[in-house]
Amino acid sequence: MKRITFLLITISMLSVVTFTAPAPPRAVQEASPAFVTEIPPGYRSWQLISVAHEEGNLNSFAAILGNDVAIKAYTEGKLPFPDGAIIAALHWRFVSSEENNKVFGRPQSFVAGPPTNVQFMVKDSTKYALTGGWGFAHFNDGKPADEAFLKTCFPCHAKIKDRDLVFTRYAP
Amino acid sequence: MKRITFLLITISMLSVVTFTAPAPPRAVQEASPAFVTEIPPGYRSWQLISVAHEEGNLNSFAAILGNDVAIKAYTEGKLPFPDGAIIAALHWRFVSSEENNKVFGRPQSFVAGPPTNVQFMVKDSTKYALTGGWGFAHFNDGKPADEAFLKTCFPCHAKIKDRDLVFTRYAP
Repeated sequence: MKRITFLLITISMLSVVTFTAPAPPRAVQEASPAFVTEIPPGYRSWQLISVAHEEGNLNSFAAILGNDVAIKAYTEGKLPFPDGAIIAALHWRFVSSEENNKVFGRPQSFVAGPPTNVQFMVKDSTKYALTGGWGFAHFNDGKPADEAFLKTCFPCHAKIKDRDLVFTRYAP
Repeated sequence: MKRITFLLITISMLSVVTFTAPAPPRAVQEASPAFVTEIPPGYRSWQLISVAHEEGNLNSFAAILGNDVAIKAYTEGKLPFPDGAIIAALHWRFVSSEENNKVFGRPQSFVAGPPTNVQFMVKDSTKYALTGGWGFAHFNDGKPADEAFLKTCFPCHAKIKDRDLVFTRYAP
């Protein structure tokens, strides 16, 4: 009798779940990749992976940081990254430092200028199955970029499949 | 009687200290700044302060990291840095990334190349009193630079007294 009651409760709970959170039709799932819409907390304290500079239109200075899961995978040289890995790219303007150049006596010093954006790659092979297991994010002043913009991330990252879609290598 | 015994022991201890560790003459102290000769453990896991690039002979890409004491002082905007603060500058060659440029379709990407050196500034206002409270260090492949090289650090850093001799500003 106890077993039957338990079964009934379980079935009834399942019905509630099915009723309140119906799965989207398969066609919709396939057409709509998911994006990261919340800034992962505490990212500014994460460990350094490497640094980068992009010329041209971007003119950016970047520090690429990783949460503990990402850093462990990097330092152990393990690919693909496991679920839970998050990589953050903090971007600033790439600017000449007048105050440093004055001390050095020549125009040689470039530093991080005003912050421009922060980007994230969040590994969840189920949630982000449509985009190689990575959820992409881009925040300007804490506000997420629109979906049209975020859709441009995956096609470019997909070109480096052998690096599990991640451009940055670990700087020793 | 107790007080007299205590005094005698104290005086006798002081004598031992004086005998086994005599203070160097004042003239010698003034002429010989101390340098940092050991790499602070765990520095690669410290938090990011900022990034930097030096052109010219250096052609370097840097990440500047800080221990907890340094990061706290930075984020609270407190100068001078308290004793115990350590700042690390990790340097790599500033190199064009062929593999990234191939994906982007143009030569725009610069990354951290081979590591070149790691430098440290260690705050200890007593030990490093002769060099503004900072002990300087420079390691190539884990080996400390010679004293002649290290003597060139302070005169340059001394030019930015209003920033407590530290060039790098915190990148938000």
